[in-house]
Amino acid sequence: MGIRGIYRGLISAPYSGAHLNPAVTIALTIAHKFPTGMVSLYLLAQMLGAMLGAFLVWIAYYQHFQATEDKDLKLAVFCTAPNIRSYWLNVATETIATFVLVLAVLYMATPEVGLGSLNALPVALVVLGLGLSLGGPTGYAINPARDLGPRLMHYLLPIPQKRNSDWSYSWVPIIGPLLGGCLAALLYICLS
Amino acid sequence: MGIRGIYRGLISAPYSGAHLNPAVTIALTIAHKFPTGMVSLYLLAQMLGAMLGAFLVWIAYYQHFQATEDKDLKLAVFCTAPNIRSYWLNVATETIATFVLVLAVLYMATPEVGLGSLNALPVALVVLGLGLSLGGPTGYAINPARDLGPRLMHYLLPIPQKRNSDWSYSWVPIIGPLLGGCLAALLYICLS
Amino acid sequence: MGIRGIYRGLISAPYSGAHLNPAVTIALTIAHKFPTGMVSLYLLAQMLGAMLGAFLVWIAYYQHFQATEDKDLKLAVFCTAPNIRSYWLNVATETIATFVLVLAVLYMATPEVGLGSLNALPVALVVLGLGLSLGGPTGYAINPARDLGPRLMHYLLPIPQKRNSDWSYSWVPIIGPLLGGCLAALLYICLS
Amino acid sequence: MGIRGIYRGLISAPYSGAHLNPAVTIALTIAHKFPTGMVSLYLLAQMLGAMLGAFLVWIAYYQHFQATEDKDLKLAVFCTAPNIRSYWLNVATETIATFVLVLAVLYMATPEVGLGSLNALPVALVVLGLGLSLGGPTGYAINPARDLGPRLMHYLLPIPQKRNSDWSYSWVPIIGPLLGGCLAALLYICLS
Repeated sequence: MGIRGIYRGLISAPYSGAHLNPAVTIALTIAHKFPTGMVSLYLLAQMLGAMLGAFLVWIAYYQHFQATEDKDLKLAVFCTAPNIRSYWLNVATETIATFVLVLAVLYMATPEVGLGSLNALPVALVVLGLGLSLGGPTGYAINPARDLGPRLMHYLLPIPQKRNSDWSYSWVPIIGPLLGGCLAALLYICLS
Repeated sequence: MGIRGIYRGLISAPYSGAHLNPAVTIALTIAHKFPTGMVSLYLLAQMLGAMLGAFLVWIAYYQHFQATEDKDLKLAVFCTAPNIRSYWLNVATETIATFVLVLAVLYMATPEVGLGSLNALPVALVVLGLGLSLGGPTGYAINPARDLGPRLMHYLLPIPQKRNSDWSYSWVPIIGPLLGGCLAALLYICLS
Repeated sequence: MGIRGIYRGLISAPYSGAHLNPAVTIALTIAHKFPTGMVSLYLLAQMLGAMLGAFLVWIAYYQHFQATEDKDLKLAVFCTAPNIRSYWLNVATETIATFVLVLAVLYMATPEVGLGSLNALPVALVVLGLGLSLGGPTGYAINPARDLGPRLMHYLLPIPQKRNSDWSYSWVPIIGPLLGGCLAALLYICLS
Repeated sequence: MGIRGIYRGLISAPYSGAHLNPAVTIALTIAHKFPTGMVSLYLLAQMLGAMLGAFLVWIAYYQHFQATEDKDLKLAVFCTAPNIRSYWLNVATETIATFVLVLAVLYMATPEVGLGSLNALPVALVVLGLGLSLGGPTGYAINPARDLGPRLMHYLLPIPQKRNSDWSYSWVPIIGPLLGGCLAALLYICLS
């Protein structure tokens, strides 16, 4: 899923500034780097994009969902789950990882000449690094749309022998990233 | 094979616009980004290039084909095969993956200054990402020439104890990518 | 930890020249590429940054420290340890690896136009390569702050069933990198 | 070893055009892209560089050579060996891989603005791709100095319980790469 994120960053970079993440969009709005009036439109597009991606994955792996017996694994194709369930500590992990991501986005330097799609490479490498270093405990959603959209699709789509969509955890990868993004934006404002 | 694709992209980028894929070439023609008169020449070159690559691999691994007993593995060196055989769902997977690839190529932004061979890096990263995310079910040909050319070489070359070249599947990685490329081009035209 | 280093390089590059490593800062000072008066401030910031990073990791993995029984593994999250303990040969390994790093930093060519955060990519790739080639014997600290800061946090933080912080080895990843950095700077001066 | 090559490419690129490979240097000379009078000096430096690298590895892993029992593994740290020994087919594999490398170097497009050390990235990615695709049969020396220099160091250095330095194979990674480089240069001349 992180890899798909690189893809989305590479092609969306020049059109929307690679806004694929509600936590990033809201943080940029707080930091006065994004117009407030566009936020709701962007959030909607992010949710729809994440759901569409999950839908395409569902078709591509249609037979594999039938052949696979592990119900947790089928859910993990769509959304994140904690290694050790403890809601507030899981929120803390998501908050820290998103804080690090958004701080990077806010302080990332732009090249002197536009590099086209490669402008998205530094953020993509940061996301890759976050997954490798802080991704262990919660699977690093660090993006509310990336978790909620596919979770909704897991709930809606006919998947043979699926488990429940773990709604009791679903608020963690929403609250954590939003909190981390806001904290990073506030720190950025204080330091400016 | 995906890695060889990066190589071919890196060195062909400035000469042909990294046209290594009939599905991409045809999609660009539909989107009025490539002259119709050149298409057949390009398709021919793409097939010959894929066959030459397979020929070089055959020489380099000549002894290994003799030492290896697994006949499916020997075929897999040349062309793709589905994990779970179901022709129309396999076509769907190839269609989706190529749709995503071609849409990326069509919307990929070019840098303000030419970066030489590095211009091919974004598409190469997209192909890498597609392999990791959607490559599971069919081995992601996403390129008719990349599958048909080496499959033909598997059929023609003297490989000790080879199996048949699985011609019953060979149409899937042709139809799927062409369909996906055309759908992406049509979407691009509608949105322009 | 190496991945986190890429992150730090990407976002700090344009502000501080990616000074995250006391061995690099001191070597650049010797090579007259960094003002002497700023060194102590930078060293302090490097130590604090490394400690803060270790603190965030401690929170994110809080439950995992409780669930893990291997005490050496818990220490390895924070700081390096040799595969085969032999202090002076371990110092030699760290000296060589840091010598190679600092020589690369000193001779690294800058692009004709600023590439923003991507300016940090060559050094990041060098660090990645060092880890893969020379990282085996000592875990390649190649940075006194990166080892001492997190080691101090391992000592200070309440981690369930932790071992001692291996202070008897702690001087190796300080002396080795400083020595390697100074040797590289002296070679650079001689060759200039 | 391939990783060390990236390192060497990154820092040597702006000074020598990343000439680390006698096969590349000689091919560029044949293609009139490198002055004949400098060739012998470059070949000497390439051999010395490869030997120095092997020497540093020997120090860094000094204890590991004592702890390791596998004598073939100790030799493999220094130089390449074929998976299936058959001298002329091994030569063919090295010839093909180096042909592909040198053709890439000759046709690689340069960016419109210098990218500093990142200019070496495309060739580094080609070498990485060659290792993954054609590296299996012979360990892809694709560089006479990279194989002969460290092999000589294996012969000269006191390594506990080492095997012979496999001199009977040593000519393969010299003849193959030189042949592949010359063939690529001749093709380049014919097509120019």
